Amino acid sequence: MIVVMKPDATPEQIQHVIQLVQQLGMKAHPIYGTERTVIAAIGSKRDECRQSVASSPGVDSVVPILAPYKIASLEVKPERTVVRVGPLWVGNSHLGIIAGPCSVESEEQMLATARAVKAAGATALRGGAFKPRTSPYSFQGLKEDGLKILAVARAETGLPIVTEVLTPSDVELVASYADVLQIGARNMQNYRLLEEAGASGKPVLLKRNPAATLEELLLAAEYILNAGNQNVILCERGIRTFENHTRYTLSLSSVPWLHQHTHLPVIVDPSHGTGHTALVAQMAAAAVAAGADGLIIEVHPNPETALSDGFQSLSFKQFAETMALVRRVAKAIGKQINTLEPEPAEALSEV
Amino acid sequence: MIVVMKPDATPEQIQHVIQLVQQLGMKAHPIYGTERTVIAAIGSKRDECRQSVASSPGVDSVVPILAPYKIASLEVKPERTVVRVGPLWVGNSHLGIIAGPCSVESEEQMLATARAVKAAGATALRGGAFKPRTSPYSFQGLKEDGLKILAVARAETGLPIVTEVLTPSDVELVASYADVLQIGARNMQNYRLLEEAGASGKPVLLKRNPAATLEELLLAAEYILNAGNQNVILCERGIRTFENHTRYTLSLSSVPWLHQHTHLPVIVDPSHGTGHTALVAQMAAAAVAAGADGLIIEVHPNPETALSDGFQSLSFKQFAETMALVRRVAKAIGKQINTLEPEPAEALSEV
Amino acid sequence: MIVVMKPDATPEQIQHVIQLVQQLGMKAHPIYGTERTVIAAIGSKRDECRQSVASSPGVDSVVPILAPYKIASLEVKPERTVVRVGPLWVGNSHLGIIAGPCSVESEEQMLATARAVKAAGATALRGGAFKPRTSPYSFQGLKEDGLKILAVARAETGLPIVTEVLTPSDVELVASYADVLQIGARNMQNYRLLEEAGASGKPVLLKRNPAATLEELLLAAEYILNAGNQNVILCERGIRTFENHTRYTLSLSSVPWLHQHTHLPVIVDPSHGTGHTALVAQMAAAAVAAGADGLIIEVHPNPETALSDGFQSLSFKQFAETMALVRRVAKAIGKQINTLEPEPAEALSEV
Amino acid sequence: MIVVMKPDATPEQIQHVIQLVQQLGMKAHPIYGTERTVIAAIGSKRDECRQSVASSPGVDSVVPILAPYKIASLEVKPERTVVRVGPLWVGNSHLGIIAGPCSVESEEQMLATARAVKAAGATALRGGAFKPRTSPYSFQGLKEDGLKILAVARAETGLPIVTEVLTPSDVELVASYADVLQIGARNMQNYRLLEEAGASGKPVLLKRNPAATLEELLLAAEYILNAGNQNVILCERGIRTFENHTRYTLSLSSVPWLHQHTHLPVIVDPSHGTGHTALVAQMAAAAVAAGADGLIIEVHPNPETALSDGFQSLSFKQFAETMALVRRVAKAIGKQINTLEPEPAEALSEV
Repeated sequence: MIVVMKPDATPEQIQHVIQLVQQLGMKAHPIYGTERTVIAAIGSKRDECRQSVASSPGVDSVVPILAPYKIASLEVKPERTVVRVGPLWVGNSHLGIIAGPCSVESEEQMLATARAVKAAGATALRGGAFKPRTSPYSFQGLKEDGLKILAVARAETGLPIVTEVLTPSDVELVASYADVLQIGARNMQNYRLLEEAGASGKPVLLKRNPAATLEELLLAAEYILNAGNQNVILCERGIRTFENHTRYTLSLSSVPWLHQHTHLPVIVDPSHGTGHTALVAQMAAAAVAAGADGLIIEVHPNPETALSDGFQSLSFKQFAETMALVRRVAKAIGKQINTLEPEPAEALSEV
Repeated sequence: MIVVMKPDATPEQIQHVIQLVQQLGMKAHPIYGTERTVIAAIGSKRDECRQSVASSPGVDSVVPILAPYKIASLEVKPERTVVRVGPLWVGNSHLGIIAGPCSVESEEQMLATARAVKAAGATALRGGAFKPRTSPYSFQGLKEDGLKILAVARAETGLPIVTEVLTPSDVELVASYADVLQIGARNMQNYRLLEEAGASGKPVLLKRNPAATLEELLLAAEYILNAGNQNVILCERGIRTFENHTRYTLSLSSVPWLHQHTHLPVIVDPSHGTGHTALVAQMAAAAVAAGADGLIIEVHPNPETALSDGFQSLSFKQFAETMALVRRVAKAIGKQINTLEPEPAEALSEV
Repeated sequence: MIVVMKPDATPEQIQHVIQLVQQLGMKAHPIYGTERTVIAAIGSKRDECRQSVASSPGVDSVVPILAPYKIASLEVKPERTVVRVGPLWVGNSHLGIIAGPCSVESEEQMLATARAVKAAGATALRGGAFKPRTSPYSFQGLKEDGLKILAVARAETGLPIVTEVLTPSDVELVASYADVLQIGARNMQNYRLLEEAGASGKPVLLKRNPAATLEELLLAAEYILNAGNQNVILCERGIRTFENHTRYTLSLSSVPWLHQHTHLPVIVDPSHGTGHTALVAQMAAAAVAAGADGLIIEVHPNPETALSDGFQSLSFKQFAETMALVRRVAKAIGKQINTLEPEPAEALSEV
Repeated sequence: MIVVMKPDATPEQIQHVIQLVQQLGMKAHPIYGTERTVIAAIGSKRDECRQSVASSPGVDSVVPILAPYKIASLEVKPERTVVRVGPLWVGNSHLGIIAGPCSVESEEQMLATARAVKAAGATALRGGAFKPRTSPYSFQGLKEDGLKILAVARAETGLPIVTEVLTPSDVELVASYADVLQIGARNMQNYRLLEEAGASGKPVLLKRNPAATLEELLLAAEYILNAGNQNVILCERGIRTFENHTRYTLSLSSVPWLHQHTHLPVIVDPSHGTGHTALVAQMAAAAVAAGADGLIIEVHPNPETALSDGFQSLSFKQFAETMALVRRVAKAIGKQINTLEPEPAEALSEV
């Protein structure tokens, strides 16, 4: 890290910081500039050290140089992680397409949706049994009954199940039904939940919090990786900005940036990322063109009667049209959906 | 709610929305404008209804009119809630001043801090035993040992304890030591945690998530209130914006706005809200001038050696100076710290 | 517009608003709900009326229903505007590719760049002669000498010139050299400049201000359209958010949203929108997949020695590779670059 | 500045950057860390150098150390600037209170307002004659007739006039009437206008653009200072964020931060900063408590009939109440409004 001293820092303050840096186990390398002294501190990426030095008298600011995440870093593992669960392949040239309703509402609804999205080319089924809702008066999900319905839909279609878990004590239950555990955007920094999901051994789909930087997203992933679970799929789903034409601002530059900094696959949620049915197809296509490793899209037999998120859900017909568009763009950039050809062994992390 | 139809909506689509509104139990009131038809739907604040209508063909947008929170609303309870725990009074003309370190590090540190902040006029002691940390490699808190140290500091100084709880399964343990349960900003929408904290019966300090609107903050409070717990203190602690001169942007207009919409008391955290020791005193004074019912401030015997947040902590001397400034501003606007005169019974919610 | 009264509004206040609405020339349509009265005011999209009513006693808020822009609206002109200047076609199935350096630095630099970008498929040349710079100590452009160099490059390559004008008194000079006047993001609400550019008769490339909503962008375009100039190209170039991995957040959802609300063509600037050379190609591809009508990309013979914006400029080789990617994506979605086939007359606005 | 090389930067790339830094006239100081090489470049704050190095192969990022503004810096001029125009003193212990309507509408309106705000304690009169309006269809101001009305109000009350200038060619005209030229938020980076206002010799009130960092605000001020005009008053008036309970987010931490980095006085606009009459008084008090050197507040004889901004204007009675509150807070922190005691000569910049 680089310690920038104030212009009026005294020689004693500078000396004090040098000693502090050394006490913290780093090498101190002072550089006396024309207007400021800066001290390069070599050898640690620990946040505590940065904070400690930042509190010293005469210090103006501290600039970290090393990324604080480790296991998630492309420097540590240069081969890309491919998460593979049945027909769901996410990573490298494979696009994973996860589709389904916001909430599991009934067996009829889930079976119809599962059949329709499979026919259109989806490779996994989503559906919420435990729902995080902004208001306590909103529908909170069917809970375990919802999980059972998902299992029925999987048995019928072969599609693996991606479903959300809200709290650490539910991880065991949800993991007993789900193929992939989803950690929602509100829970990206629910650290006990990240640790439990990590310990479960199930692949985890980690959604970016709408106020999180990409570094914070990778540090959240690091909690899961650090618990011994290497199958983490990152998901960009929009950030909070001043824009009011969409529910969130879908920040697609996160896709290539993440690909340049982590080996983990990155998918995009154009449904939450826009909040409007009418924008989903174009943003799905854009996400794939930006290099996304997959999509997660809300689809409902009848969006108008959906118990949640109908305004951003696609009908079966709209989903099929979106898939046709996505397929053309994917092909143009050398990606494919649902191939059966094996990956090279070293790049593959099988589940 | 107001349903705005698209300019090219057909009579059939308009008729369909009218029927849908009626099926959802509301009265439909269509207004045929020069360029658009809008339909006023009277009688529900349920979010599901809004979403359902928003998904109908021909609908451009749906504008909610009624606030979705109920128990938190000033309309429902026009008397202001005053939360009172020993010398900590928060609400009406009483400023509650909660001070202490980010993390409990040792008995020596906590006792020294408790004595110093009490001497300077604080009315409650803060200190984290369970710490939510962005990185899994950062100090995670002393856990129950930290709670025991807090109890020692309370026994010695009489200051009630405000400390954070991170996960539902810890609520019982933390509540057995704490006088006020703190729900941190990252957990504002951790609904199971809100429900457990609500059920505990302990007063709850609920911090605003840096990406949350004030409506979302009130809906999070509603989870706690709905569990039967009326002693909720809201806390503004800064939002995520593009600004880079502070860690967050402390949005003080939230204080008067909340006072105009809810009966719950509102305090401000100028430490996290700025992220810089050098800005804390002025923003504490500004918060009080804006009408805040209290402050929560990080204080450490030696910020330079703090295990977390030293860069935004005040030393004992800085805290005493801040309190002198705050006291002058409080007096100027008719507020006081730590009075022993009783509140009028109807405005008081004792614990 | 919809006037929402406060819950405690008196009958006199409600009556007063009804009269005020009528005085302002609108029809008032009161709706008495269970908790609130709302008044639908029919017949005006003027902002003054909204503000006036919003100031009345007992009014809680006013919700506009009609879009405040007129000529820019797709409702007013359902055929898409195609701007065509020599080989630059922007709109419908034609992608306009504008490429060149941030600043005109020398004839040698411009000629080399013009030849290279033309060879790679660009259809117009960009280059700044008048530069808006955050610091007064930065290079401010070659001014008229720069315009002359641009004219030389056009004479040699046939590429039309897109260049920025900063202030109303320069419009005549810049318009005497340029084929398309660029209004930069900082000047999106420089209304005298918009009016002058409108009056010049030249096509105008209007960049979105990084803090502007799309409605504000369309209202800025309305100043130009209202001056009698129909050849306006909108440009998404990133908004200011909390994200720090890019210079701005490129909000690609603006492309389909604008296409659903205005007939004007929309291009994307992935260079400013990301601020990093390494992210430009993917975001260019994503923009085209989202339906953009073109791209504006910074290209420099030697980014390292550029007098401005080198860190986000592409080398000739990088630009050629980006064009190859863009061409594949464009083809996949039925778009083309630089065709000579005529457009259907009704959809075409020739210059 | 600090040049951070990529982890895989080659020795040749590192050597190349060292040479480039030296060619740019700086000293290069390489530091070989455990995972990265960083190169400290000593001796320049020019943005061009930073950009040039940032474009070199193998460079990951460049971190500037020195602030890019010079004349505005507290390091260059440690004495605080006090701007003084008749009864308007802005800076040090003096609060300048600028009040008046958004737009000049009539002589009657301006005279009534001038008398009322003077009686309540204002020290200058605001009123817009040239209005920047988001929509071309909104009221654009009375132009020179408005300036004449302002002059009449000044002649009658003795209050100096603060009024906005929109475009360089109007500076001479507006300066012939105004005592202080206002540069609005939309024009903060209208560089030709900043230069003209600087050259006019009149004091300039420079409002922060809602998307500008404080560094960008100081660089905009630098354009005026660099034109030889030292009488610049900065104004915080709210930034664009995701918050929807206010028109902008008033970021009061900018006040103490600016005081710690520049000698220029800083005032606050709680009218635009909130957009709601009901929030103005509390935010005015908070601004003063945060250390603001003054306020600019919208006041109108009858907000309901205002041609602009009525919803955020105070009535005469509301303004008098706000002033009473502000006066109490000012006194509590040792500030005063409108004193006649002279300032120490060295800290005073008279007009």
